[in-house]
Amino acid sequence: MSLTKKIHCDKRLTSQLQQRLQNFLSFVDQEADRFLGYPCNRFFDYTPLYPFLSFPLNNVGDPFLPSRYHLNSHEFEREVIGFFSALTHAKPEEIWGYVTNGGTEGNMYGIYLAREIYPEGMVYYSEATHYSVPKILRMVHARNIMIKSTVNGEIDYQDLAETLRIHRDVPAIIFANIGTTMTGAVDNLDRIKQILKDNAITHHYIHCDAALGGMILPFVEHPPAFDFNAGIDSLAISGHKMIGSPIPCGIALAKKCHVDRIARAVEYISTFDTTVSGSRNAITPLFLWYAIHSQGIQGFRKIVRGCLEMAAYAVQRFNECGIPAWRNENSITVVFPKGPDAIMNQWQIALQGDMGHILVMPHVTKNQINLLLADITAAKEVKP
Amino acid sequence: MSLTKKIHCDKRLTSQLQQRLQNFLSFVDQEADRFLGYPCNRFFDYTPLYPFLSFPLNNVGDPFLPSRYHLNSHEFEREVIGFFSALTHAKPEEIWGYVTNGGTEGNMYGIYLAREIYPEGMVYYSEATHYSVPKILRMVHARNIMIKSTVNGEIDYQDLAETLRIHRDVPAIIFANIGTTMTGAVDNLDRIKQILKDNAITHHYIHCDAALGGMILPFVEHPPAFDFNAGIDSLAISGHKMIGSPIPCGIALAKKCHVDRIARAVEYISTFDTTVSGSRNAITPLFLWYAIHSQGIQGFRKIVRGCLEMAAYAVQRFNECGIPAWRNENSITVVFPKGPDAIMNQWQIALQGDMGHILVMPHVTKNQINLLLADITAAKEVKP
Repeated sequence: MSLTKKIHCDKRLTSQLQQRLQNFLSFVDQEADRFLGYPCNRFFDYTPLYPFLSFPLNNVGDPFLPSRYHLNSHEFEREVIGFFSALTHAKPEEIWGYVTNGGTEGNMYGIYLAREIYPEGMVYYSEATHYSVPKILRMVHARNIMIKSTVNGEIDYQDLAETLRIHRDVPAIIFANIGTTMTGAVDNLDRIKQILKDNAITHHYIHCDAALGGMILPFVEHPPAFDFNAGIDSLAISGHKMIGSPIPCGIALAKKCHVDRIARAVEYISTFDTTVSGSRNAITPLFLWYAIHSQGIQGFRKIVRGCLEMAAYAVQRFNECGIPAWRNENSITVVFPKGPDAIMNQWQIALQGDMGHILVMPHVTKNQINLLLADITAAKEVKP
Repeated sequence: MSLTKKIHCDKRLTSQLQQRLQNFLSFVDQEADRFLGYPCNRFFDYTPLYPFLSFPLNNVGDPFLPSRYHLNSHEFEREVIGFFSALTHAKPEEIWGYVTNGGTEGNMYGIYLAREIYPEGMVYYSEATHYSVPKILRMVHARNIMIKSTVNGEIDYQDLAETLRIHRDVPAIIFANIGTTMTGAVDNLDRIKQILKDNAITHHYIHCDAALGGMILPFVEHPPAFDFNAGIDSLAISGHKMIGSPIPCGIALAKKCHVDRIARAVEYISTFDTTVSGSRNAITPLFLWYAIHSQGIQGFRKIVRGCLEMAAYAVQRFNECGIPAWRNENSITVVFPKGPDAIMNQWQIALQGDMGHILVMPHVTKNQINLLLADITAAKEVKP
């Protein structure tokens, strides 16, 4: 725990309150050392951008249109969108996007677009889908059916095929996972498209939740189909996950033709209102822009390779200790039978049923993996 | 324009990119001096909290429940909610809330709650309502009718009464403005409640969009009814407006009994998922907490009084120059017939039809008002 960071508060704060902030900083610093269970990279440094935090920046409105609110970072946001468009093989002239407040907003945007295009459409998503998705579906009143998952976390293609077959009268909206939350499983878009074809369902929409996978698959050797190359309609990627950010953020990308349908002229801000939020964070687009230019494609490739190697190491070490840990191909999510709750909580390990998982993000070290493993095995020996 | 702020970038950025950031900072610094048209305070200082920006903080989940994601500022978020609950006369045990990404999310939350409680309910809102609201209503598939506005921006009570009368078969969901975007008008809740009573509509829900007004009315001498004292069901206040923040944020407050209806147990994060977003900004709750403790009730009262006095000054000066500017009672929004577009754009004045407005936020000075006025009158003299 480093205590080099001292907080220098406004003098109007009582010393007690100042101490609370200082204690909170120490707590966070300490807890960050056992941060193994969530897909958030803790290695980032945006200090050069802090001067921008002195201004009421706001990216209100469409990043691709002029705005009367001059204190915006739309220019940088557009370049961030350009980067992710290229990364996901979108044709620049056919794509629209913006920087969101996180994965949920990106998924909400995709589902909203799909429902606008196919108001009677049925949304199909696997039971391994993030818990926020059923919430969104309820919120936007989209008809939906949860499909079973396979053991590794992919959508159950047989269940999907059978379910689609009995709903051929309505358009199909596929919510695909490009890396599930719990096991990092990637739904096979080729198989899904074949199922749609087999059922002659020509009216369909495919949204990809690529929160984590969208920053992994572009950097592996032989990625499965996951992006606009595969004919998808929209996609969401998180910014605070693999790239890392102190503030949740993400990227929503969608085919421009879909977005144009919901654009509304709004005189008030002299811009078209195509985003979900009104006032929008202008700092996170700067953070992402900065990360993109600091790392570059080669930097990200190196980071992702490091995570995958470390994940392989974690599986191997767990297995050596007799714990049947495993991971999906191209995944940095190491799944294992959950250990004692106190230990799982100490290492901030999210649980689902009997499973726990480590997210081997860029900050995860061999030492941390071995410390966690030592905690688990020690508890086992005590237990008998 | 101060150029004291120098950006020290990562060396991996080309000098060209570093220069772009530096230029952008200068641009922002310059434009911030003519920032009169939006309701965002540019006076704030959160530098003492910057050390927290080194960590992947995330307030995922309900701020009132424990979370496995330890790097959260829920504790501070709860205190912020407590402050705004007290400010809006909510009973602590009956209220729930969270810090949102801005006004839109708070309004979406209120409308979503209302629609869940009254799926067949009709939403009534005035034409002076923020443009994001029709967008939200469409998104959540809520039946709705736009009601006329009076000249000053309040909802037209006669139109509301007549419209409610012919829809007495469905619950009424009132979306009330506590300070409209364009003229700062406050819908009269007493009259609205009387209209509901006159029509014997007992099933109703009142949401207040108090984005700006929620941080003005608590600090004036004789405020109109606008909060939980008036029996409303939910309320949204912006954090980046009167308080000021480099990142848009807000507060959503709702009666706990309504929120409990949509709470879902979610094992994944070991918490109940009652918020709109999944991952949530943990920095803005710290900013708000800090502002609340730096300013205190007395500080905010002084700030608001200063803004109201400055707004009165602006009206007087405009009138002296023969421009029929006006403002609503307790409003810091000075409305005037719009001037030449180049000048309106230079001062970042939002327009609607023939109207422009100055938002007399804490940073607005007499000098700025007079400079704008000089620009407008000079253009007038040139024109004929």
